[in-house]
Amino acid sequence: MEKHYKELKLRVRELENELIKCKQKQSAMEDAHPLYRQKIDKMSAEVVDSNPYSRLMALKRMGIVDDYEKIRTYTVAVVGVGGVGSVTAEMLTRCGIGKLLLFDYDKVELANMNRLFFQPHQAGLSKVEAAEHTLRNINPDVSFETHNYNITTMENFTHFMDRISHGGLEEGKPVDLVLSCVDNFEARMAINQACNELGQIWMESGVSENAVSGHIQLIIPGETACFACAPPLVVAANIDEKTLKREGVCAASLPTTMGVVAGILVQNVLKYLLKFGTVSYYLGYNAMQDFFPTMAMKPNPQCNDRHCRRQQEEYKKKEAERPTVEVVQEEEDVVHEDNEWGIELVSEVTDAELQAASGPVPDLPEGITVAFTIPSEVTDGDTVEETEQSLEELMAQMKKL
Amino acid sequence: MEKHYKELKLRVRELENELIKCKQKQSAMEDAHPLYRQKIDKMSAEVVDSNPYSRLMALKRMGIVDDYEKIRTYTVAVVGVGGVGSVTAEMLTRCGIGKLLLFDYDKVELANMNRLFFQPHQAGLSKVEAAEHTLRNINPDVSFETHNYNITTMENFTHFMDRISHGGLEEGKPVDLVLSCVDNFEARMAINQACNELGQIWMESGVSENAVSGHIQLIIPGETACFACAPPLVVAANIDEKTLKREGVCAASLPTTMGVVAGILVQNVLKYLLKFGTVSYYLGYNAMQDFFPTMAMKPNPQCNDRHCRRQQEEYKKKEAERPTVEVVQEEEDVVHEDNEWGIELVSEVTDAELQAASGPVPDLPEGITVAFTIPSEVTDGDTVEETEQSLEELMAQMKKL
Repeated sequence: MEKHYKELKLRVRELENELIKCKQKQSAMEDAHPLYRQKIDKMSAEVVDSNPYSRLMALKRMGIVDDYEKIRTYTVAVVGVGGVGSVTAEMLTRCGIGKLLLFDYDKVELANMNRLFFQPHQAGLSKVEAAEHTLRNINPDVSFETHNYNITTMENFTHFMDRISHGGLEEGKPVDLVLSCVDNFEARMAINQACNELGQIWMESGVSENAVSGHIQLIIPGETACFACAPPLVVAANIDEKTLKREGVCAASLPTTMGVVAGILVQNVLKYLLKFGTVSYYLGYNAMQDFFPTMAMKPNPQCNDRHCRRQQEEYKKKEAERPTVEVVQEEEDVVHEDNEWGIELVSEVTDAELQAASGPVPDLPEGITVAFTIPSEVTDGDTVEETEQSLEELMAQMKKL
Repeated sequence: MEKHYKELKLRVRELENELIKCKQKQSAMEDAHPLYRQKIDKMSAEVVDSNPYSRLMALKRMGIVDDYEKIRTYTVAVVGVGGVGSVTAEMLTRCGIGKLLLFDYDKVELANMNRLFFQPHQAGLSKVEAAEHTLRNINPDVSFETHNYNITTMENFTHFMDRISHGGLEEGKPVDLVLSCVDNFEARMAINQACNELGQIWMESGVSENAVSGHIQLIIPGETACFACAPPLVVAANIDEKTLKREGVCAASLPTTMGVVAGILVQNVLKYLLKFGTVSYYLGYNAMQDFFPTMAMKPNPQCNDRHCRRQQEEYKKKEAERPTVEVVQEEEDVVHEDNEWGIELVSEVTDAELQAASGPVPDLPEGITVAFTIPSEVTDGDTVEETEQSLEELMAQMKKL
């Protein structure tokens, strides 16, 4: 009996000691500063657990990408760091992009927690500040430049233009790509105007206010339709459009749809920058039916944006100077004749306008409609050219093309 | 002069004070413990910045989901917390799922940093532990249960079966859905066996080793093809398959492809649980060409898994007992006759086998091929039934269907 009692007491002491050790270790882990990784000079393909680039460099061995390291030489500007923009920036950071420029004027709110990336403890911080902090910890090899302002005011727009044309990795050089991840018409028009003026290639993305459809679009000034050439297109979600776009209505959003749109956007960026696969000119996502239409759009020769018209002229000139064979190839690559755009209105219009609009619709791929009509007064007028045409005039113009 | 000097000195003092206050505030913000949000008893649709559910509850107002709050009553098991599983778990957490069960035996490594979710400071922690910590901070309303083990060993498999059938939100009830986000054949076969035995509905997901294609698949035991009914299908990436699946080759991966697959997987989960849109039986993603094939597959009456055959019998009985009209509807919903599965081999087979295999191929949607052939010795034999048929026998069986 006495012997068993002693043994038991020993066992208790043993267990107590183990528990103390365990708690100490736990506490040390909680207290420890996060072990952020060190910068890495050169991307390595070495297959070891400690190499954050091994699975990306494997794309070369797999025959997908010829020169993956080239990603470190590129600069991408992400405008709008919300549900799509934040995930876009994170994907590019994890892929080891050279430099990211982030533009947003919003603050993180708990109401953003239904989308990926931001966390509750960041509520109240500016989105660009919170994003930069997280992204720098994820990959210290990426350069970041953040701008906590609204690009649509006169002064900021000028600064935005300057950073797009001089904010490249090699200071003074333009960025390689601008990504629009904004959630409103004015900001998209501002990006469109800047990129038309600068001849800057960009990609636009969007998610519908009912959260179940989205799209991405590649815009090459002068070569493909710009944002002002035609009302922006979205994938119709087969639901009552009357519930959408009403003043004061809080838009719905889902981490799934935003994640898919960010994924197909950055995939298109990688394919464009690293030259693999087929770069999509337009890719839509309808979550209700799981369909993903693609298409391409020619620019509108009567586009309201004079810089778009100028870019079109310059593109034509360049094309004319090319050897004939190449021109034909290029035409085939860029424009699919059976994918000509058309128009169909979905909201914020009278029945009469709808009637007028649904008449001339050519062969827009099944399920694609325009997101909204171009407002007759576009903005406060500071940065974006006003559309002086009525919807009917616009429709008539499009018919002529 | 004297007056101006005094004013200036006052101004300097004022500014110095402001600067000190500003720095103090900054420092306090940096030092402060992260302000994690409190639990929320009832989902609210109120449109205020502090409501993490406002944008999800808006899905009701938008006419997309009838009863969004119902998401809090569901339990989902995520098997594999890697590139797809971690993002899947995060999306479900942000959507406010009732309970998540996470299964993984792996540790976080820096080599995982090219995919979303995990961060460098988590390197060395078990994936389930690191994931639970992050997810709990993101949404404390979700219940978590984590299992840091390999489900394919005998003992763990028994425990896994038990948790699937009794780990629901209401203890003792089964989970509502199992999601396979694993990266190997053995684990998929183990999940398949468990779900066939339990009659548990599950969804499978996968990403190719060259990182540029993936798929999701809904499996309803007895009603659709199980994982053992036919070799798993993947979207062909139009690249040389000989570079894939070689022993010792490090697989490539991309945050984009993984993010898209997690997005379409969780979108399918939301549509299934909350009853909106069309649930996909199979959705593929080919990143090189941006195409997304869909299809459905009937179960194989000669499936090697006896529980699958039993479930097929039970399903047939249930169908026979239903009123005729409903049966017809169901059939139409579930099986698309023009999407019957077929077989095409891509790797690890001899030319003769390839020849034999490419003969009987019916009309598998363009671009879909099988991921790999079923190994003749499936596993160590502990948990998964062995396939005793040769490839040729399997092909012959399929022809008969």
